[in-house]
Amino acid sequence: MRKIVLLSPLLLSCVSYAASNPVDPLSAWKETPVKQAIEKWVQESTRDGSPNYIPLDKRYVVFDNDGTLWPEAPLTFQLQFAMDEIKRLAPVNLEWKNDPLVMAVLNDDFKTVAASGDKGLLKLVALTHSGMTTEEFSHRVSHWLDSHKNRHTGCRYDQLGYQPMRQLLDYLRANGFKTWIVSGGGSDFMRVMSQKMYGIPPEQVIGSFALTEFRLTKDGPQLRKTMKGAFNDDKAMKPVAIHLFMGQRPVAAFGNSDGDLAMLQYTSANPDYKTFEMLIHHTDAIREYAYDSHPPASGKLVDGLALAAKQGWSIVDMKQDWNRVYDPELCRK
Amino acid sequence: MRKIVLLSPLLLSCVSYAASNPVDPLSAWKETPVKQAIEKWVQESTRDGSPNYIPLDKRYVVFDNDGTLWPEAPLTFQLQFAMDEIKRLAPVNLEWKNDPLVMAVLNDDFKTVAASGDKGLLKLVALTHSGMTTEEFSHRVSHWLDSHKNRHTGCRYDQLGYQPMRQLLDYLRANGFKTWIVSGGGSDFMRVMSQKMYGIPPEQVIGSFALTEFRLTKDGPQLRKTMKGAFNDDKAMKPVAIHLFMGQRPVAAFGNSDGDLAMLQYTSANPDYKTFEMLIHHTDAIREYAYDSHPPASGKLVDGLALAAKQGWSIVDMKQDWNRVYDPELCRK
Repeated sequence: MRKIVLLSPLLLSCVSYAASNPVDPLSAWKETPVKQAIEKWVQESTRDGSPNYIPLDKRYVVFDNDGTLWPEAPLTFQLQFAMDEIKRLAPVNLEWKNDPLVMAVLNDDFKTVAASGDKGLLKLVALTHSGMTTEEFSHRVSHWLDSHKNRHTGCRYDQLGYQPMRQLLDYLRANGFKTWIVSGGGSDFMRVMSQKMYGIPPEQVIGSFALTEFRLTKDGPQLRKTMKGAFNDDKAMKPVAIHLFMGQRPVAAFGNSDGDLAMLQYTSANPDYKTFEMLIHHTDAIREYAYDSHPPASGKLVDGLALAAKQGWSIVDMKQDWNRVYDPELCRK
Repeated sequence: MRKIVLLSPLLLSCVSYAASNPVDPLSAWKETPVKQAIEKWVQESTRDGSPNYIPLDKRYVVFDNDGTLWPEAPLTFQLQFAMDEIKRLAPVNLEWKNDPLVMAVLNDDFKTVAASGDKGLLKLVALTHSGMTTEEFSHRVSHWLDSHKNRHTGCRYDQLGYQPMRQLLDYLRANGFKTWIVSGGGSDFMRVMSQKMYGIPPEQVIGSFALTEFRLTKDGPQLRKTMKGAFNDDKAMKPVAIHLFMGQRPVAAFGNSDGDLAMLQYTSANPDYKTFEMLIHHTDAIREYAYDSHPPASGKLVDGLALAAKQGWSIVDMKQDWNRVYDPELCRK
C-alpha cells in the first residue's frame, strides 16, 4: 500500500475511509429502535446485491440545520449574529439611532424584536447581511464566532453541533453518502462553519440567499451582497432549492420542524429507491430545550408528528434516543 | 492491494485514479504553447512543495458549455431542442397556430426567429421549458437526444463534445480538480447529458434557470417548471451564480465568448492562488466554424481577445491547437 498512498492525498483519504473502525461510529446514540432503523437502512442500501441497494452516485442525503444539526432555541444563532452585528455597527451608523427596531436590539428587548415579525427580521437581515462584499461578510461571521460565546452553554457557537448528528454525518459519508445541508439559514452564513462543524463543503450547503452584484472596482472584481432576488429556503421552497442546487432527488432527509415536511415528502416519494426520513423531536428540557410541540414555538413540530406516524418516518426523542447532545471534547461546560 | 480494492467501489475509483496512464491524456491537443501552458499550470498547482500548490479542497475549475465544450453555431443546441419541441407539440396545441413566431419555427424561418430577439427566445423557452414536471422535462430532453441528429455532422447531439476539452476535463479530475459547468444554457437541459458527455454530475452544472413549483398531487409530490424567478447565467451573472452555487472562487476558468469575461475576471482575481484562464477562439471553418470575431455573431469574442492579451490568458486557436475537434470513436462522419 505505501507506494500508492504516497502517490496522492486523495488516495490517503480513500485508504483512511477503508480503515476499519473498532469504535461504534454512532456512540452518542442510545441502542433504541431509531438507531437500529438508521443502521438497517444504511446496511440495506449499501450492501451489494441487496434489493434496496442504492448506487454511489445516487446516495444524496439532506439535512436541515437549525434544530436538526445545531440548536435553534430560544432564538436561531443567525438572528443572534444579526443582533450582535447591530450592536457592533450602531456606533458608526448614527442614522440607525432613531429606529425603534434597532433600539429594541440595542436594549435586548427581544419582545419587541419578536413582535416585529418577518418584516422586522428581514430588516435586521438587510442591515447586517447586505451592502458588503462576500469576503467581508465571511470575515464578519468568523470574527463573530471568535468573539462571542453562546450564553446558555458557555460554548463557541461552532462547538454546538449535536454530537449524535455529527456522528451520523460521518457514518453516512463513510458509507459513500454525499451529505447536504438544506436550511432556512443563509448560505453565506452557514458556509463559514459548515466544513469545520460538519465536514460539509460550501457547495453542499443550500440555504436562504439573495443575489450578489458583480462590480469591477479599483480593488478588482467584487461581489457585493444585496437583498435582490431573496429566496427563503423553507417549507415548499426546500424541494425547489434541492432541485435547483442538487439536481436530483435525495434518498434520505433529516429535519426537525413542520418547515421541513415538504423536503421529507419530496424525498420519501423518490420513485427509484427505498428512502429514509427522520424528524428530531426537541423533548429534552434539561440538556437542550423542550419546545417544538407547543405552537407557536419556533421550529414547531405538530403536523410532522402526525405525518411521521402515518408515513413510518423515524422520530428522534432527544431525551430518550441520545446519550449526549453536545460533544464534551469540543466544549466542557 | 486486492484485499482493499474489494472493500468498496469507492476504493476502486481511487485506485484507478492512481493507475499510471501510458497514453498522452491530452492527445487531441497539438504540441503548442497552449497545451504546454495547461500542463505547466497543473503540474505547478498539484506538486507538493510547489510555491503555486493548490490544496485539494480549493481545486475548483469552471467551464462554459456552449462554444467551449460543444458547438453553439449556427445556433445553440438548446434553441434547436426548443424549435424541435415546438414542432412536436404544435399538433396538440392548436392555439399556437396563429402565432407568427411559432409559424416561423414550423417553417424553419430562422430569420424571423432570430429577428424576434430575446423576447422571442424567451417565449420559445416558456412554451417548451415550463408547465411540466421536472421529470417530464428530463424525459423530453432524453427523447430529443435519442430521436434527433445534428444536421451538420450527422451525429447525436450528445456525441459532439469537443474531444480536446473532454480530455482536459478528465486530465484535471485525474489531478484532483473538481470540474464545474457555468453556462448560459439551462441547468435542467444540461444536467440530462452532463454526466455522460463530460463526467460532470448534476450538482456541478450551473446554468440559467427558473424556479419550480412544489405541489402535492394525487400522484404524489411534484415539482413543476415555471418561468418565475428566471435567472440568465451570462456575463456579470456568471460570477454571481458561481458564488451562489459553488460558494468559493475558482482557480481556473474556461470560456469562449465575451459573455464569459466576468467569470474569467472573477477567477483571475483569486487572492490566494495562481489561476489559469483560457478562451476558445473559433477559427476552424473546415472542422467547425470560424465566426466569433465577426460581431454580431453569436458567442462573439472581441473584448476577450484584447483582454486575454493584456492578462496573459491562453487563447486556443481551434485550427492551430487541436488535432481533432470531435471524438472519432463517438461518431464517424
